[in-house]
Amino acid sequence: MNEHGFCAAFQQAVELVGRRWCGAIARELLAGPRRFSELERAIPDISSRLLSQRLRELEGEDIVRRLVESGPPVQVRYELTEKGLDLGAVVSELERWAHRWLEASMPRS
Amino acid sequence: MNEHGFCAAFQQAVELVGRRWCGAIARELLAGPRRFSELERAIPDISSRLLSQRLRELEGEDIVRRLVESGPPVQVRYELTEKGLDLGAVVSELERWAHRWLEASMPRS
Repeated sequence: MNEHGFCAAFQQAVELVGRRWCGAIARELLAGPRRFSELERAIPDISSRLLSQRLRELEGEDIVRRLVESGPPVQVRYELTEKGLDLGAVVSELERWAHRWLEASMPRS
Repeated sequence: MNEHGFCAAFQQAVELVGRRWCGAIARELLAGPRRFSELERAIPDISSRLLSQRLRELEGEDIVRRLVESGPPVQVRYELTEKGLDLGAVVSELERWAHRWLEASMPRS
């Protein structure tokens, strides 16, 4: 990494977190393991198909892992790996910034 | 913002930082004001057209401002506003995470 030039690793991290719904999925899983249906409810605008694609991608990147709990009934949950949990500081800073600079300009319910 | 639910402000912040090249532009401007040509050199894969579009968008969002220094020659530089500078902590955390988790897997030059 060059301190005063383009940083490929930084760019890759931004693209990963910025990939549609990846930030929201990481934010939800930071609160604890979740079932597929729980993630679907927590992210109202995501489709089942896109959520399952994103979870597969995040598994491939070693950010999320599947927990299969033997049944019956067999339960599948998703949780963050160590690499995923370490995104907590990024998510916190984004939330702090959003609170400070964006919330005031958003409609209140 | 609901602590255990979807957060629209967080989602907006993720989409802003994750918008193609916005993270790289903010990272470069955190080092100081830059001319258009300096930004172009610092972000090798961006086109002039997209860079100028992104700078206009970031100006519209009050993250970047244009500094016009009277000449001759007139010089235009771009710098971060207070809102933009406050993204520094987000950028730092993304860099720290990228260093720790992505750099080892990237080809070295």
